[in-house]
Amino acid sequence: MISAQQIQTTMARYVELVDAGDIDGILALYNEGATVEDPVGQPPIQGLADIERFYRQGLGASKVSATLTGPVRATLNGCGAMPFRVDMQWAGQPCSLHVIDVMEFDDAGKIRSMKAYWSEANIGPQP
Amino acid sequence: MISAQQIQTTMARYVELVDAGDIDGILALYNEGATVEDPVGQPPIQGLADIERFYRQGLGASKVSATLTGPVRATLNGCGAMPFRVDMQWAGQPCSLHVIDVMEFDDAGKIRSMKAYWSEANIGPQP
Repeated sequence: MISAQQIQTTMARYVELVDAGDIDGILALYNEGATVEDPVGQPPIQGLADIERFYRQGLGASKVSATLTGPVRATLNGCGAMPFRVDMQWAGQPCSLHVIDVMEFDDAGKIRSMKAYWSEANIGPQP
Repeated sequence: MISAQQIQTTMARYVELVDAGDIDGILALYNEGATVEDPVGQPPIQGLADIERFYRQGLGASKVSATLTGPVRATLNGCGAMPFRVDMQWAGQPCSLHVIDVMEFDDAGKIRSMKAYWSEANIGPQP
């Protein structure tokens, strides 16, 4: 089982990679058969090929910055949750999206599932 | 389906009730058959009687304060996630526990499941 500290390090690294727009780096964190549900309520996508398409269409098509806004919460059974903020342009205006990602990790420390909690209710002006 | 705004209001209210130590108020937010997994990794408890025992043994036995530390993230399918901080005494020292709660709501707006993400890795000095 991956430790709480490993979960904290990997999830903080994920936000840095989103901030850098490093999609190859992000994909390297995922298990081959992982699922992504972003936002929660959308049908989950499964497998690295679809996950790569998801990040290239989203993150690859826009200029965003991402900032962790509190500590990564890590459990003793390989799960983590973290609050972060994505700053971007929305309809030509600068705005911020507040997200919480919940991740499950496999024993090798790769992401087995990612769920992103947000909706338009979490979009507002930049701080 | 409960709206994103209703989810935000109910979850912010939950933190206020924890802060006030109002266990009856907390229980009134739960569905009869709800499940609670706190922290994630522990066996879930189910049903209001066991949930009441959980809060009375935990929250009822100590003096804590609770503060929301960022916006409640709410989805369009009845789920929410929020970061908060619990300030308390731990082994005689003041300390803070950083938690993220994820909740699912039923169509009446009651909590159907609560999962609390944290471990000892999330305990530190008070800010």
